[in-house]
Formats: sequence, structure tokens, C-alpha cells
Amino acid sequence: MFKVNDNYLKLPGSYLFSTIGKKVAAYQAANPEKSIIRLGIGDVTQPLAPAIIGSLHHAVDEMADAATFHGYAPDLGYEFLRSAIARNDYANRGCDISADEIFISDGAKSDSGNIQEIFSVDNKVAVCDPVYPVYVDTNVMAGRTGTYDPKTERWSDVIYMPCLAENNFAPELPKETPDMIYLCFPNNPTGSTITKDQLQEWVDYANRVGAVIIYDAAYEAYISEENVPHTIFECQGARTCAIELKSFSKNAGFTGIRLGCTVIPKDLKCGDVSLHALWARRHGTKYNGAPYIIQRAGEAVYSDAGKAQLREQVAYYMNNAKTILNGLREAGYTVSGGVNAPYIWLKTPDKMTSWEFFDYLLENVGVVGTPGSGFGPSGEGYFRLTAFGSYENSVAALERIKKL
Amino acid sequence: MFKVNDNYLKLPGSYLFSTIGKKVAAYQAANPEKSIIRLGIGDVTQPLAPAIIGSLHHAVDEMADAATFHGYAPDLGYEFLRSAIARNDYANRGCDISADEIFISDGAKSDSGNIQEIFSVDNKVAVCDPVYPVYVDTNVMAGRTGTYDPKTERWSDVIYMPCLAENNFAPELPKETPDMIYLCFPNNPTGSTITKDQLQEWVDYANRVGAVIIYDAAYEAYISEENVPHTIFECQGARTCAIELKSFSKNAGFTGIRLGCTVIPKDLKCGDVSLHALWARRHGTKYNGAPYIIQRAGEAVYSDAGKAQLREQVAYYMNNAKTILNGLREAGYTVSGGVNAPYIWLKTPDKMTSWEFFDYLLENVGVVGTPGSGFGPSGEGYFRLTAFGSYENSVAALERIKKL
Repeated sequence: MFKVNDNYLKLPGSYLFSTIGKKVAAYQAANPEKSIIRLGIGDVTQPLAPAIIGSLHHAVDEMADAATFHGYAPDLGYEFLRSAIARNDYANRGCDISADEIFISDGAKSDSGNIQEIFSVDNKVAVCDPVYPVYVDTNVMAGRTGTYDPKTERWSDVIYMPCLAENNFAPELPKETPDMIYLCFPNNPTGSTITKDQLQEWVDYANRVGAVIIYDAAYEAYISEENVPHTIFECQGARTCAIELKSFSKNAGFTGIRLGCTVIPKDLKCGDVSLHALWARRHGTKYNGAPYIIQRAGEAVYSDAGKAQLREQVAYYMNNAKTILNGLREAGYTVSGGVNAPYIWLKTPDKMTSWEFFDYLLENVGVVGTPGSGFGPSGEGYFRLTAFGSYENSVAALERIKKL
Repeated sequence: MFKVNDNYLKLPGSYLFSTIGKKVAAYQAANPEKSIIRLGIGDVTQPLAPAIIGSLHHAVDEMADAATFHGYAPDLGYEFLRSAIARNDYANRGCDISADEIFISDGAKSDSGNIQEIFSVDNKVAVCDPVYPVYVDTNVMAGRTGTYDPKTERWSDVIYMPCLAENNFAPELPKETPDMIYLCFPNNPTGSTITKDQLQEWVDYANRVGAVIIYDAAYEAYISEENVPHTIFECQGARTCAIELKSFSKNAGFTGIRLGCTVIPKDLKCGDVSLHALWARRHGTKYNGAPYIIQRAGEAVYSDAGKAQLREQVAYYMNNAKTILNGLREAGYTVSGGVNAPYIWLKTPDKMTSWEFFDYLLENVGVVGTPGSGFGPSGEGYFRLTAFGSYENSVAALERIKKL
């Protein structure tokens, strides 16, 4: 008789955003007359920029003609996209990353879930707490996390690095030595970030203890302050210890068309074994590339017109962030984030738990956010709102919250 | 110090089609004046059908307007596509599969590689030999296959089911009992298939021994004969033992835009554990859906216009298959396949090995095929040609081969 992967059975509850989706759907079904404003899941709402739409139409037309039709994509992705990324996101920032160190994918969620697969199950994982649930859940599925304690809401073999108001939401070097360190800055869910010097400390630490940093840079387009690194490869020595995950979802609104990439420098090795070679093998064996037309859309992100249009789009969302941040402050909430990231992280009032505040907001004013505890035990008592709604909805949500 | 997944290091060589690609590129670089005809990798060459192009343009326009913009897709895929598949591919054939048993994905390669993940590493895998390399390679990566013997080219913990001329390229029930059985009909690479009665035997066997069948139906659109099953769910009892993988690559030419689906009936269980629930969890945690515009293209496959246009496209390729099959026969080759599948499977002449014949064809007439031994030890002495080229190239390739 076949058996299942028991590790899946250890997972408590369902994927966070699936749970929220079901709760909201149930509430809406029971209260069809209520208007709901969704500032929960980090999904964008602005349409794709004209330069991207034009590029998509052009690529679709190419697929209509045998002479310009594109079948299976090259294993690593099309060179036109990989070199645009290498030039714009790395070379122009003085970072040494070549086009053939970039693997095009269908998004940072898949990559951040799949990347653990090329590592031993014996490796010890360190995560920020709170954290994007995919990092932990996919390590649970792989059997890397030990046992779950429902009381502490912690896995026995995971190193948690609390990110709280006390440490300005920046993780401290862990006491126990990890093998794999997940870092995400600007951070999801707290919206905070760290300076280049702070990130350099992490790179030096990883090189010293022989750990690999899996660096999620999905929100780098939202950085507004100087001295905040846009990529870990701005740091000296990152080529021997870091993998970077990039997304087109937040900088260009690709949540519905799916595109991302993973950067693995060829200098990143475990003994003689190149992680670049292992990921290339996984890519070639278990994946068949992002659609040609979507890769062309990705290329348009780096065109002059695309860049100008996307700067406006990011500014639009960051104006929402400012609106939410200032509005919450005026209403007496303790808030952070929202300056270099599209997320606002607030302390729940009156010692409510995160889920109590979720229900309170949904039931009283029809505003959906994300409970901080869904991101890890240190997220308890916090709540995340996103700036990815429309301006009108951001304003309306704040008006509703102020009336509470 | 972090460690890597050692199972990756057990894999001999690179992914088959990557190896072929590199060999052909090297030959072309050394002989830039030579014209090469590629009948190797199973990639399509005809442009997307007009109904699909129209649907893509329309969906792109929707993404340009905030009112019709689509962000993250529902976890299982859009209902419009899942219900079109349920109706056309299942209900219309009298098969009991509901829309919520269908999971939309970015293609059958990803699904056939990822599906093993929800099973225990202790499960015993059975594969046809020769076989699509992804089934075996992904189980190697998971640590399910034991050790590799380079002499026999076999993994110690894999059950091989030889498919040879002697058994009409149909596997026989294995002596040792497997937990997971990979079947693909019409078959890649042999181009052969089995009858509904034969498939019913497999379903009965799987239910009897408690095995799960992972059924790859990627080529069902090429079935031309009666009594050949289009889906395993035509068989009684398949709902308690079978998972079906479907692709839009071959019936609709989506190799470059990526779409597929996996069907897991809710009756398929290991004790109390539903495989549907496990796969839903994987889908929700490690994947973020196929692009909206591609799912709309998939819907167009099931429109009246789409169906008519794709019937013509399949007929075009099957005319190529006939041309290649008859041409090879006339040239004195022993051939099979090509009637219910776009693949022609030929015995190499003069006791050449598969790779010797690969080099012989490439160097003497510039025709690229796929060495049978790349699909498994029982593929040695065989060679695969695909009907997915243009008609002109199929004719030209045969003219060249006849001159040998």
C-alpha cells in the first residue's frame, strides 16, 4: 500500500492566505449587503502599465506566425530577459552578477518554496519571526523542521529570530548556528528594512559560519531611503554565501501573470558542489520555463517607457502607504513600516490577539487585513495592512477605522 | 556548514534534452554551413490557433484596465477553465470528474516532477522502460530510487517494466509490488498505446495491491483508433487509485505558453488522508497559479472555433507522422508508433547503439532525433523521431535518411 509524505500531516491549519480567503468569503456570504475593503493579501490592483501591455500584444502576435512562434523556452529563461536584469538590477548598481547566474521562473513564491529542495534535510533553518509563511511551511513539507509545539507555535528544529519593536524589527545574529538563513528586506510582513551595513554583517556572519542566505528582495522597488540595499549583492562577499529571489509582482504588478527569478552566483559552493549547477538541474528537470509572452512582458519592465510608468505605479502605492500610516497614527495606533515597503505593521489595540483584531475589523467596518500571528509567534498582537489597494479604498478603509 | 541534497549528486549526466541541445549546438557551431532538421525534442512548430490568439489578446486588454485586471489566481485555477475541462474531457466521455478535482498548473512537466512529493520516500516506484526521464529523475532527487548501477543503467529501488517489440511496447504487471506506478499512453517515447481493457487491468491491479497510478495523458488528442482510452477515468475504479496529468502542449501547441492540469479524485485516499487535500496544500503553498491570460487561452481550446482549429493542427502533425512512418518503412527500418501518437520509434540499423545512431544521423544528414537509451536501458537500440516539425521538414528529413 502506498504511503503519503507524513511531513505534510504535521502542518497545522491551511496556508495562511487560503484561510483568510475562506473566512472573508464566509462572512460575505452571510452578509451580502456589506461592502468589504481588502487590504489583506499583498495583491496589486493597478492595471499593467501600457509598455507591458504593448509588449504582451506584440508577443502574442509572434505566437500567431510559424516564423516567429516560440515553443519550449531555454532552460534558464530567455537571454533578452536575463541580460536586462543583469544590466539594470546588478551592473548598474555596481554588482557583479552575470546573465547566466539568473534563472527565470514563474515567481518568487515558487522559487522561495522550491529552493530548499537542493539542500540536505539535515540543514538547520533560521527565519525571522514573523515571516512569510512559505519559508517555514515548505521546510516542514521537506521534513527539516522537527516537531511542532502548538503551545509555543514553534517547530523544534527551526531557529526563530524575533523581529519586534524592541529591536526595530531587525533580526539579531542567532545564538545557535544555522545552515540556511531566510532574510527578506524590505520585509514582509513588518514593512521594515535594514541598512547596508547591517546586511553586510549578515553576509560576513554567513561566510564565517558556512551558512547560505536566501535573500528575498521582492519589495526592493519600494525603497525610498538612502543606504538601504536593493540587493544583497551590494555587500562584499555575498557571491560566496547568498542566493537572491526576485519578483515582478510588486514592482510591475505581475501577480496575475507570474514572473520572477533566482540569482545563484557560480562562486556559491558546498565543497566542490556548485549550487548553481544543482538549481540548473532542478530547473531543467522539474520546470519548463515561464511563458515566452510573459518573459517579453518582463523585458518591457526595463524599457525606458516601462521604467517611467512603473515609477509612477510604485509612487501611487506608496502614497497609499503614507495615507494608511498617517491615518493610523492619527487614530492613535502604534505603527511601523510603510516607508520603504508597501506594508504597514500595527500593534493591535486593547491587547487583542491578531485574529481577534481581524474579526473585529471585518465584522465592524468590513476591512480585511492579515493577522500578524499568521506570520509566526512573534507576530502575535500585530496586524498587517497593505498599500496595494486603490487610493480610494485606502482612504475609505482609514475613515472606517477612525470611526471605531 | 550547510550541506546539499546528496540525491542530486547521484544523477548521472544532465537532463536528456539539455544534453541533446548542447550536442546539436556544438555541432552547428563547428559546421555553421550545415542545415539541421530537428525532430528530437517533442516541441511543436505550428503557430497558436486563431481562437487562442484572439483569446490571449482579449485577456491582455483586460489586464490593462483596473476594472477587469486580474491579480493572484484562485488556488486551484480559474473556475471557467476547470469547468471547461471537466465538461469536455470528462463529462462528455461519461467520466465522473468534477471541476474541483482539477488543479490548473503550468504544465505536465512540472506536475509529473512535483507529484511524487506528496508521497513517502519509502514508496516503491514502477516505471515503463523506456520512459519520459522526468519520472525517474525526480524520484532520484527525492531519494526514492536507491543506488545507480552504471553497468545495467538501473536504480536498485526502481521497478522497471520493459516495453519492447516482443510485448508490443505494453508493460506487463510487475512481479514485485509497487506503490507508485507511472503510466503514459499514448506513450512517450514509443508512440504505442494500450486498449481500454488493458488499462482496466492496471486499474484493477492498482486497487488490489494498494498502488497509485500516475497516468500521463499528455498525448490523448492524437488517438485515432477506437477502443484506446482518452483518460484513465474511463476505467471502473480509477477514482480510488489514479491521478491523471494533462497537458495543453501537444493538443494545442502551448509548449511556449505553459498550461496543464492534474486531476485527483476526492476518493483517492491513503487511510483517512486525501491525496486531493495534500496536493491542494502543495499547490497553495509552493505555487501561485498559471497566468490569467494563459488560463483564458486554455478556455479557448474548448470553444467551437478552437476545437475545429485544433483538430486541423493535430491532423497536420499526424500527416507528418504518417510521412515519417511510411518513409522509414520504405527505407527498410523497423518502426512502430505514429498512429495514435506523434512519435515514431525505430530500431537502429546495423546494431548501432542509440547514441551512435544519433551521431550518425546528425553528422551525415543533419537530422536530430532522440536516442532511445536516453529514456531507459530498454530503449537501447531504438531511436525516437517526432512528428512535431513542419511538413516540409518531415519530408526533407526522410529524403535525407533515405539517401543514407
